Amino acid sequence: MADQLIECVPNFSEGRRPEVINSIRDAVAAVEGVRVLDVHADAEHNRFVLTYVVPESRAVASGLAAARAAVKYIDLRTHEGAHPRMGALDVFPFVPLGDVPMARCVELAATLGEAIAAELEIPVFLYEEAARRPDRANLENIRKGGFEALREALPHDPDRRPDFGPAAVHPSAGAMAVGARRPLIAFNVYLGTPDPKLAKAIAKAIRHSSGGLRYVKGLGLEMPGTGATQVSMNLTNYRATSIVTVMDLIRAEAARWGVPVLRTEVVGLIPMDAMLDAAQAFLQLRDFSRDQVLERRLLQSS
Amino acid sequence: MADQLIECVPNFSEGRRPEVINSIRDAVAAVEGVRVLDVHADAEHNRFVLTYVVPESRAVASGLAAARAAVKYIDLRTHEGAHPRMGALDVFPFVPLGDVPMARCVELAATLGEAIAAELEIPVFLYEEAARRPDRANLENIRKGGFEALREALPHDPDRRPDFGPAAVHPSAGAMAVGARRPLIAFNVYLGTPDPKLAKAIAKAIRHSSGGLRYVKGLGLEMPGTGATQVSMNLTNYRATSIVTVMDLIRAEAARWGVPVLRTEVVGLIPMDAMLDAAQAFLQLRDFSRDQVLERRLLQSS
Repeated sequence: MADQLIECVPNFSEGRRPEVINSIRDAVAAVEGVRVLDVHADAEHNRFVLTYVVPESRAVASGLAAARAAVKYIDLRTHEGAHPRMGALDVFPFVPLGDVPMARCVELAATLGEAIAAELEIPVFLYEEAARRPDRANLENIRKGGFEALREALPHDPDRRPDFGPAAVHPSAGAMAVGARRPLIAFNVYLGTPDPKLAKAIAKAIRHSSGGLRYVKGLGLEMPGTGATQVSMNLTNYRATSIVTVMDLIRAEAARWGVPVLRTEVVGLIPMDAMLDAAQAFLQLRDFSRDQVLERRLLQSS
Repeated sequence: MADQLIECVPNFSEGRRPEVINSIRDAVAAVEGVRVLDVHADAEHNRFVLTYVVPESRAVASGLAAARAAVKYIDLRTHEGAHPRMGALDVFPFVPLGDVPMARCVELAATLGEAIAAELEIPVFLYEEAARRPDRANLENIRKGGFEALREALPHDPDRRPDFGPAAVHPSAGAMAVGARRPLIAFNVYLGTPDPKLAKAIAKAIRHSSGGLRYVKGLGLEMPGTGATQVSMNLTNYRATSIVTVMDLIRAEAARWGVPVLRTEVVGLIPMDAMLDAAQAFLQLRDFSRDQVLERRLLQSS
């Protein structure tokens, strides 16, 4: 069995002190096999997101390194920020790449959660695909009220008992969510209207929560001073709800309102397969094998 | 300097005897660093095309292996086929991949041509980007009349003197064209009309030779019994004439005739960058960096 790559996207409760961000990044990068793809810090949220890939066999070790570094450098008792959080290392999702089955990432999440709880005495909750209770599939249910509320509730409320570790937050590092999820595409569509009502109406039509496409989350946003508005989306399963379907529906809805689609943007990374879906749609390519893409053939024959 | 990959697409005058095709393929594949991507044999043309990649440093060695094997196994005096040809190894183009400059492939073509002429006493012509005379950029000018005509003309006609080697064809292996060219996309568009006149009219509008797009060659073809017709194209420089522009123009022309575009096909391989051009067009992605494609980021950070 090849040692396939897993993507890891830990979120840390620090977005302001570059020396802390760098130290945590370096601690993770020092694990054999880790390749850091991106570091994205947000000062207002006081939070940073580390994106890296690591071979399966080193994935748990890299997660432990991330948790140890977070405990060492971050103290939630003095942390403030706009984003909800309950832990120094707040959430740690494993994301399958290529042909890695989701079940493998669920397994990695459980192994990592148990190891962190045992070594660092941090309560760990399993979330999304790794959740062991349906209500914990949604991270917001776990994190409700953040660190401060959890610190009060954990010792008393059996419903909030963690999957691993003590029924009390770690004094400085809080609690942690470890999980498995599909690759996510952050995708924004700019509309040629200043009226946020139209952007909101289109967002409502396409997102799952209000009756739209199953794996789309979306909001209609104002873009003051630009004459435009934005439909801001997360595509949470691009294999099941294709970015092509999303564009088709947004274009149809926008056209019905007489609003042009000005342009779109991908925030962060997008899997090659989603781009190839879009290319095949544009070109009307039927009976196309992805092995016909030269660079993919090269990767396979190596 | 990294030892970057070059694509090689030699065409051999044998498309019927599998044992000969396999022997030649194996002789090339035995060169260190060669990775064979495709073997495409055509019995009617009595010709096969080998597609492989090889690091720059081994490219000339792989070409010499191809020429030696062709001389060993193919005798043009007993070769017949529908496709024009002048050599056992008929044409050998080097194609730059990734960031390799075209000038490097031109250099490789000259080095290989000189080596083949010296070792095997075959007259070698440099063609396309490697041509040293403008009329030799076009392979058809070099190959005019094929092996038989060249055998007569070469000793007498100073205009047909090769760039390297003797002014006489090799008795069994003929002559050879060695060159450098851009990656080529073989791209066909199916039209929802049985009338070949419309396919021919659209092909005429888009191809360079009749006033259309600079790097497009194209023909309108009948598809008897299918109710459809085809515009069959070679895109000879997809960076300069994008596949997106080609589709835009074909769709506009077809719409003007009231003809639907049914589907398209890529014959053989297509470079990733051409697919990403199409994806960006479909998604209306502006300000998109190709480093945002996860798999490309992975390749870079390795």
